[in-house]
Amino acid sequence: MSNFVLVHGAWHTGKEFEPTAEVIRALGHRVWTPTIAGNRPGDSKRTGLAEAIKSIVDYLGEHDLSDVILAGHSYGGMVITGVADQVPQRIRRLVYWNAFVPNDGECLNDLVPPLYVGLFDPALADKGDGSVMLPFPIWREAFINDGDLETAQRAYGLLNPHPLNTFLDKISLKANPATTQIPKSYVNCTEDTAMPHSYPWHPRLSEKLGLFRLLQVRGSHELCFTDPARLAQALVEAGRD
Amino acid sequence: MSNFVLVHGAWHTGKEFEPTAEVIRALGHRVWTPTIAGNRPGDSKRTGLAEAIKSIVDYLGEHDLSDVILAGHSYGGMVITGVADQVPQRIRRLVYWNAFVPNDGECLNDLVPPLYVGLFDPALADKGDGSVMLPFPIWREAFINDGDLETAQRAYGLLNPHPLNTFLDKISLKANPATTQIPKSYVNCTEDTAMPHSYPWHPRLSEKLGLFRLLQVRGSHELCFTDPARLAQALVEAGRD
Amino acid sequence: MSNFVLVHGAWHTGKEFEPTAEVIRALGHRVWTPTIAGNRPGDSKRTGLAEAIKSIVDYLGEHDLSDVILAGHSYGGMVITGVADQVPQRIRRLVYWNAFVPNDGECLNDLVPPLYVGLFDPALADKGDGSVMLPFPIWREAFINDGDLETAQRAYGLLNPHPLNTFLDKISLKANPATTQIPKSYVNCTEDTAMPHSYPWHPRLSEKLGLFRLLQVRGSHELCFTDPARLAQALVEAGRD
Repeated sequence: MSNFVLVHGAWHTGKEFEPTAEVIRALGHRVWTPTIAGNRPGDSKRTGLAEAIKSIVDYLGEHDLSDVILAGHSYGGMVITGVADQVPQRIRRLVYWNAFVPNDGECLNDLVPPLYVGLFDPALADKGDGSVMLPFPIWREAFINDGDLETAQRAYGLLNPHPLNTFLDKISLKANPATTQIPKSYVNCTEDTAMPHSYPWHPRLSEKLGLFRLLQVRGSHELCFTDPARLAQALVEAGRD
Repeated sequence: MSNFVLVHGAWHTGKEFEPTAEVIRALGHRVWTPTIAGNRPGDSKRTGLAEAIKSIVDYLGEHDLSDVILAGHSYGGMVITGVADQVPQRIRRLVYWNAFVPNDGECLNDLVPPLYVGLFDPALADKGDGSVMLPFPIWREAFINDGDLETAQRAYGLLNPHPLNTFLDKISLKANPATTQIPKSYVNCTEDTAMPHSYPWHPRLSEKLGLFRLLQVRGSHELCFTDPARLAQALVEAGRD
Repeated sequence: MSNFVLVHGAWHTGKEFEPTAEVIRALGHRVWTPTIAGNRPGDSKRTGLAEAIKSIVDYLGEHDLSDVILAGHSYGGMVITGVADQVPQRIRRLVYWNAFVPNDGECLNDLVPPLYVGLFDPALADKGDGSVMLPFPIWREAFINDGDLETAQRAYGLLNPHPLNTFLDKISLKANPATTQIPKSYVNCTEDTAMPHSYPWHPRLSEKLGLFRLLQVRGSHELCFTDPARLAQALVEAGRD
């Protein structure tokens, strides 16, 4: 029995990981699905990356979790990297699921193609409260390309505007991921075009982990909606010793 | 119920798409499988790209087809790009299946590696009537690598010499594919080595579509012969809204 | 009925190919699983590449094998390339399974990333008898990433120290693989990170074969341990005419 903590991506909350968590629980594990500061109902959309990371550090402390398999999706990769840097003693393994892997001093926007930086340009995209939203056509074609239209629409309805500061703030790390002793895995969905395949998640970002375990699974960036059971199986295989 | 029009590749006719079309029909859709000018029995092998495109534009008009999911395979990507440029009002979505994606002024031979241009050099390859044929060893190893020898031989026997002008003529477009409003999908067979994987179909050509939906499926460039049901399923998922 | 000869990789012997061979035999073929000189019990760990190649040439001669589908895994690609250069008349097809493809004058260490050359630096890695061993963490995460820990440990226990000279000796070939008339296939396990995916087996090494048939199959570099039946099926499809 392992302890999984699943950290969601931008525009999501922990709730959207629950169908995946249920399958992992059915396989005999314990699973927590916290929501990062900035994405909780009522949170300020001016929340920055340090506060986001701190909210998960605090969550692990409040629940006194140790021996944790800490998984992060997409933007959640920024967060789990920061958490592992601060409380490595709580972590058994890091699992990145099509997630960003920052080195010290990098922000999320440093890791995406110029087109995306423009898409979330504060002057253009800010909804007035410091948050940005993903346009539906991009969501439907490039994020949840393996689902039908109804699933794409239903899932889009669950999203919340995301605090832009968490894309702009540079992370502060004592050590870059490749140099730490914590074991690491990377789960790559082979049809994930949230990053264009000419500028891909894997191996461009995954290899910043140094020695790591690769798992690949069919699916889009939003496999948590389109096939949570397949995702759960991949996370369990990625998380084992 | 959707309207699928499947546009074949070089050396093929619409007939070779029929096993795929039958599966799509069984899933509840209507499917047409025209043959492009230059590949119909008796057509001049001096046929050029403009005439090839016009033949499919005319076909849509003669059958008064609208709300069409227009799919093109390989060379068929040149053709559907031209068709969509001329009669966008008839098209609901473009689906490229390991297909060429030209911008205005490009010809097919601009999009293949130098080795292939040489292979179809007029001086060397022309069969005397303006057509070229694909040598069997290349067909067997690089085009239909997922089939057994008998399937490879049977399918090769169905091919017809292809009008070389359609590889050499530069396409004339009012707008490049990435800039048009028609939704687009790209189906990538993961074992398709008709383009070498160092110079691949996807993402090299697919990303010329701008925002597009990716589907990937196991199989070679000739999945229409080796597993038409698998191809049909992929085309339906690529074609839905 | 075909004649398969399976040539293992570094640190392995022919015995580790037996579960795969059993499945190929059950499909109606004959299979031999020799052990390369340098990896047999009692062999000198100063064995070089020429001697390694000669041991398989001799094996084919002693068993008077012809019409052979000669398959090589990893380092075994160096060996089968040399064997085919010396006794092409015995070979029906070469099958490379995530294997090195050398041109004349190249050694294995010329084909791996600088990190790996350092890992097997004689001064650091030599166990005193001319052999090197793969550290378990690299084996577990990058070689057998699709297995559970127990499988990884059991398989690691079967390995033998590998003669470093076979990585350093430059191969001597009459002709480079791309220029020979022997048909060739490449089986690529899609989760094989023994070579990093930024510097991959396929297409970086596979395309040195010139015209070749690609097969891809889910799995790690050590699919012979984690799913020998899946590997056997791929080798049979790669080996057929």
